[in-house]
Amino acid sequence: MGFGRGFDSRIPTQTLIDLTNGMLLRYDRNVKVKLSDLKPFASDPKAVDEILKTGDHVVYEYYENVVEGGFIYGVTIIYPGLIGEEYNFTRGHYHLRGDADEIYIGIKGKGLLLMQDKRGDFYSYPIERGYIVYIPGEYAHRTVNIGEEPLIFLYIYPANAGHDYESIKMKGFKKVILRRDGKPILVDNPRYRE
Amino acid sequence: MGFGRGFDSRIPTQTLIDLTNGMLLRYDRNVKVKLSDLKPFASDPKAVDEILKTGDHVVYEYYENVVEGGFIYGVTIIYPGLIGEEYNFTRGHYHLRGDADEIYIGIKGKGLLLMQDKRGDFYSYPIERGYIVYIPGEYAHRTVNIGEEPLIFLYIYPANAGHDYESIKMKGFKKVILRRDGKPILVDNPRYRE
Repeated sequence: MGFGRGFDSRIPTQTLIDLTNGMLLRYDRNVKVKLSDLKPFASDPKAVDEILKTGDHVVYEYYENVVEGGFIYGVTIIYPGLIGEEYNFTRGHYHLRGDADEIYIGIKGKGLLLMQDKRGDFYSYPIERGYIVYIPGEYAHRTVNIGEEPLIFLYIYPANAGHDYESIKMKGFKKVILRRDGKPILVDNPRYRE
Repeated sequence: MGFGRGFDSRIPTQTLIDLTNGMLLRYDRNVKVKLSDLKPFASDPKAVDEILKTGDHVVYEYYENVVEGGFIYGVTIIYPGLIGEEYNFTRGHYHLRGDADEIYIGIKGKGLLLMQDKRGDFYSYPIERGYIVYIPGEYAHRTVNIGEEPLIFLYIYPANAGHDYESIKMKGFKKVILRRDGKPILVDNPRYRE
């Protein structure tokens, strides 16, 4: 969990989470990701351009606390909506450290957590209130909101994990979640590259 | 987060927690700690003997999942009660790895989390529903139920942290939580040794 940290550098800290809606009382940073940021990750980039003509908007955001040499923990909120036929999703990333696992705990809403490793193994697990998903460090992870309200979940992972968004931007996820006949379906990503 | 783990050794897993009462749907192990186990840790060992004359009982238990090379996560339940004047408590321990931090999230009940490091720094933080406490790896941690219902909280820490209960058994916690006039007070532990 990190190396060379001085003994004096940290003391116990506390914060508060509302377990009904995921709101964190105190956080080090809030990051908002807009539709325009998602264009390279979308299965239908033309749909992104079409929506952007009428303006940009936040698709998801996260609030987190960062303890260097320890954990990063926080809450992600993915707003409901569609990008073309694709349900709102997070970019998704690999951890640079394959031994840096992550745990998700669902707080509110209805989603799917997509996971794939570099051998091509792929998993899709539901994430809803009380659902815990354990993500081994080798698995890229993306979350998709398939419900009609914000999808909110808690996450915890080692601060030294590192993020690789570039592999996902270049190759995509193997599968994507589209809305067809009003329901989510898992289909092969037409833009996926091995 | 562990070393030398094979790429094939693990896949994503899922379980479910009831965020109202902390119940885990699936767990690798359940450990029950009885009053008799706590005798070496109690501020009043004679009170333990006195209660044991009428029989032993579980003071606290935990349910947890263990991912070797990754995280251990689970739920602790401390039942309400007194051992002499001392509120029911966990033994408490140091992690063998000073860089193995831990996060607690309160689910239900009313407690105090006592933390001390080997320099003698001491902290007492409340743990109740939605309270998050970040415990740096150098801090021994003990939890005390000061309420009238079970105290239930979620915890997550690296599986390679290791446990040192012996230092606490030999030296004790600097301070203990006693019930006086029906209320919890934090007092110096008469049995603490520097």
